[in-house]
Amino acid sequence: MAASPACVDVVVVGAGLAGLTAARELVRAGRSVVVVEGRDRVGGRTLNATVAGAHVDLGGTFVGPTQREVLALADELGLAASPTYDEGANLVRWRGRTREYKGMIPFPIGPRALLGVGWAQWRYERLARAVPPGAPWTAKRAEELDGQTLASWLKKIRAGSGARELMTLVARLTWACEPEEVSLLHALHYTAAAGGMDALYTTAGGAQDRHFHLGAQTLSTRLADALPEGSVVLERPARKIEWSPDGAVVRSHSFQVSAKAVVVAVAPQHRADIRFAPQLPLAHRQLPSRWPQGTITKAYAVYETPFWREAGLSGQSLSDIGPIEATFDASPSDGSRGVLLGFAGGDNSRAFERLPDQERKRQALAAFAALFGERALAPVGYLDQRWSAEEFSQGGPTAAVPPGAWTRYGPTLAEPVGPIHWAGTETANRWTGFLDGAVSSGKRAAADVLAKLG
Amino acid sequence: MAASPACVDVVVVGAGLAGLTAARELVRAGRSVVVVEGRDRVGGRTLNATVAGAHVDLGGTFVGPTQREVLALADELGLAASPTYDEGANLVRWRGRTREYKGMIPFPIGPRALLGVGWAQWRYERLARAVPPGAPWTAKRAEELDGQTLASWLKKIRAGSGARELMTLVARLTWACEPEEVSLLHALHYTAAAGGMDALYTTAGGAQDRHFHLGAQTLSTRLADALPEGSVVLERPARKIEWSPDGAVVRSHSFQVSAKAVVVAVAPQHRADIRFAPQLPLAHRQLPSRWPQGTITKAYAVYETPFWREAGLSGQSLSDIGPIEATFDASPSDGSRGVLLGFAGGDNSRAFERLPDQERKRQALAAFAALFGERALAPVGYLDQRWSAEEFSQGGPTAAVPPGAWTRYGPTLAEPVGPIHWAGTETANRWTGFLDGAVSSGKRAAADVLAKLG
Repeated sequence: MAASPACVDVVVVGAGLAGLTAARELVRAGRSVVVVEGRDRVGGRTLNATVAGAHVDLGGTFVGPTQREVLALADELGLAASPTYDEGANLVRWRGRTREYKGMIPFPIGPRALLGVGWAQWRYERLARAVPPGAPWTAKRAEELDGQTLASWLKKIRAGSGARELMTLVARLTWACEPEEVSLLHALHYTAAAGGMDALYTTAGGAQDRHFHLGAQTLSTRLADALPEGSVVLERPARKIEWSPDGAVVRSHSFQVSAKAVVVAVAPQHRADIRFAPQLPLAHRQLPSRWPQGTITKAYAVYETPFWREAGLSGQSLSDIGPIEATFDASPSDGSRGVLLGFAGGDNSRAFERLPDQERKRQALAAFAALFGERALAPVGYLDQRWSAEEFSQGGPTAAVPPGAWTRYGPTLAEPVGPIHWAGTETANRWTGFLDGAVSSGKRAAADVLAKLG
Repeated sequence: MAASPACVDVVVVGAGLAGLTAARELVRAGRSVVVVEGRDRVGGRTLNATVAGAHVDLGGTFVGPTQREVLALADELGLAASPTYDEGANLVRWRGRTREYKGMIPFPIGPRALLGVGWAQWRYERLARAVPPGAPWTAKRAEELDGQTLASWLKKIRAGSGARELMTLVARLTWACEPEEVSLLHALHYTAAAGGMDALYTTAGGAQDRHFHLGAQTLSTRLADALPEGSVVLERPARKIEWSPDGAVVRSHSFQVSAKAVVVAVAPQHRADIRFAPQLPLAHRQLPSRWPQGTITKAYAVYETPFWREAGLSGQSLSDIGPIEATFDASPSDGSRGVLLGFAGGDNSRAFERLPDQERKRQALAAFAALFGERALAPVGYLDQRWSAEEFSQGGPTAAVPPGAWTRYGPTLAEPVGPIHWAGTETANRWTGFLDGAVSSGKRAAADVLAKLG
């Protein structure tokens, strides 16, 4: 039990995509690495599953053409991504009516509302363009942008009810929270780091362009498989890190490993689950309590065929009634099954996740049926994933940062402390919150560690 | 090491004022109780110290006449409170000038500003009166009030720069945060729970009316001393609580105790430091990451005499330059020493606490001297307390709740889960954030447990 600790060059905490990418880079540079992981699997916020013979992604799913880091990694790992189905009409269910639309923004309530939605979007995009990716606290008027919620800003610019309701859907889908919870600066920065709203919300050519037919978690399983045997230690959550300028000991129950450097690759909120001795500096200690994860649930229904395509529908939708605010066609590319993916975020997720299994299924299928017809009520399989129920996630997909945090704690987010470095998609400068940000953050942390180890 | 666990009726987690009050009530009702505490002392966010022979309160200090719960407890414990010195003029240092004022609100910049400050205050108070203490989420327009920061609201009502700067001082002094960080609804509720701004910010007759000449921590040491021997177990932070409908086991390192019920009496943020098995429901799990503590530092300078009194000054001040935004005369009632107490909260505290010891002392004394003259530079003793540096505080004095949290997680704050009940001043309906709220929350939790145990 109290054997002398194993000793390596670097310990990585967290075997998600960020941590495993860091481990890969370090091993490539000739360093010895141990990755400690609390879960009984690798992949963090990505998770493959099979429902009625169809592959589904219970966590991070999509990749887009400007996400060069994750695309390059997938290429290296020989993992192919297929286009997300994007033909036919999108649907928007709004104030009791369902309409078709094309493109990113639904125009549900006539030209007046269209004008309002477009105007609010234009103002939002203009603000976002002025926020430097990776350093939002340096934006002009950063303190003012960070001192208000997205909801406050929408009121201040006198956005109409159409624009405000649409932005509520956007917030639920993007940060899995309500506009009342999130800092305007956080929202703008997230948008800026993705390259704008088009890049974020477009399917073909945007962030939902493709997905991996073997599942996004396969990125992590292949990364782990390529590490030296025994590098990844599962079911050993890092509970304590004792550190000095020269190195650190990472402890879990009945396990410990010492190293010259540590890469902590967990969501900022979960840094609080690790005790550091000596304590971290104040801003590092306080950051986790200012960086909460959102709340998201994904629901999958699998059908014999993607029947909505016959009706000229893309399977993509937005809806102003819960529990599902958005859907995608996530069918396998060979068309062997039809798969509808529904997202519930923020208040939708909080309401949805507490329901009994059968009631969640009933509500999700009812939401699908309201959009795509009665056939949606009879899937051959159904599965949902409540990320908030996971001990090592407690929410997701990414952080929903409240006002005042970025300007005060942002510079701390990826700032090393002694031998301790930080990774995770929340620390990325580009595509933060996405698979791509996880990869780039892992590479950045590994490069920093290598530079330090010399 | 693995001896069979001790078994009692109730385990209380946290030997602060709330936890010890709960323990007292439970023991009085004939229940067996163990209180587990992470620190090496009781008293939580109260802490007695002596500087150059003078008693100082490094944590919670003051009590006011409408704080009936803590006054009644002090009476029972035979602990006397003396009036805070409140004669002479208060000072406000503002935009490079220092002026005298009387009463609660300083009028530093002429009648125009006075009008603006009074008008903003009037609007704030009117909103606060409509927020039900203990249930702010039931307020009319709660979602709207909770969807904005205090800073957003001040802009929205077009408060002048005087009113905004004054409210910044108020936020630093009250929640130890900036107006940009805190939900308007949280601020209003905190004010409502205290009975209004007069009650909060007045010295004589208000929340700073008196302090205990033996120190506020003595409330807790006397409570602990009156418990059966061995009831309080120090240096055993609760790390894990395994629970079922019938009871729970509370575990620390090399210590465990089982009970029929548990009272967790730590700040909401610190509930996250305990792992629960099975996990708590979603809202309970997420609440700690939505309920951050503020950031406060207290600085004490002790002088041979309270020399400022000779100049007709009360020792009370507000200042718009850091690091100290407010001072009080905290001299012992026999006048044997002069004691100045300075508060640094929010950004002031974040900047102050990272300075080296000597530099903090230099800056605090310079701040005192700018208000009370050169004699303030030569104290016979100096001591400050950075609550953010404490492993079991990590901030203080109380929570600075961001937007969106009260309306979504407020109903969860004191809601029991199986055998687990919640106490702590943040869960109080009246005088939340104060000693009084700690006492009432402990009594409420004990009463709930007793009702359940039958």
